[in-house]
Amino acid sequence: MRIPSLILRIYLDAEGHIGHGKIELLENIRSCGSISAAGRAMNMSYRHAWVLVDQMNRSCGRAVVETQEGGKHGGGAVLTPLGSSLVARYRKIQRSVENATRKELLALQVDLGGQGAPP
Amino acid sequence: MRIPSLILRIYLDAEGHIGHGKIELLENIRSCGSISAAGRAMNMSYRHAWVLVDQMNRSCGRAVVETQEGGKHGGGAVLTPLGSSLVARYRKIQRSVENATRKELLALQVDLGGQGAPP
Repeated sequence: MRIPSLILRIYLDAEGHIGHGKIELLENIRSCGSISAAGRAMNMSYRHAWVLVDQMNRSCGRAVVETQEGGKHGGGAVLTPLGSSLVARYRKIQRSVENATRKELLALQVDLGGQGAPP
Repeated sequence: MRIPSLILRIYLDAEGHIGHGKIELLENIRSCGSISAAGRAMNMSYRHAWVLVDQMNRSCGRAVVETQEGGKHGGGAVLTPLGSSLVARYRKIQRSVENATRKELLALQVDLGGQGAPP
C-alpha cells in the first residue's frame, strides 16, 4: 500500500538547500559536540559531514557551526545562534506542514487505492 | 538578498515522486490536449514528457493520463479522473503549505540578514 509522504526542502539561495539530512546533522552536532561524532551517528564520513556543514555555512552567509581546533579529542564543534535558530525554524515549519497537509495526503492515499490510515 | 523558499515533493512510493514540474505537465496536458504540445509549452522534448507521464502512471498504480492513438494531429491525451484529482490535491496541499509556513520563512529570512518582505 502506498502512503504518500512529503519531502520538505528549504532553498536558501540558488545553490543551497536545507533538508532533513542537514538538520539532523546539526542536531547531532549539538548533542555530540563534534562534527565527526555527529557524522558517525548517521553513518556518514567525517569528510561528508564537513562538506555539508561547509555548504550550510556558505548558503547562510554566516556560520551555523563553529569549530574549535585541537584539544584532547581533536577539537569540538558547536552550533552558532544562527544554527540553533535554523534547526528550530525548520522543525517548526515541518510540524506546520505536517499539520496542514495530513488530511489531503490521507485523501490522496485513498484516491490511490490505499486505505486511509487512522488519524 | 536571500529569500528562503520551500520545495514540495510528494513521494508516492519508494521510486516515484510528484513535484512542481510533473504537476505543471499534467496541467498543460489538460489544457493542450496532447503530451507533445504540453511538453513544448515547457520547452521539454516529447520523449522527456512521455517518460514523466509514464513514471506517474506507474507510481500511482493506475493511469493519470490516457492517450488516444492516431487522428489528424497524431492522437491526443487527457487526464483521467485520478490525474485530475492528483493535480487538485497537489495544488491544495501547496496552498496549505504556503499559508502554514509563510510566517516562519519570513522569520528565517530576517535571521539570515535579509529584510522581511511585506506580507
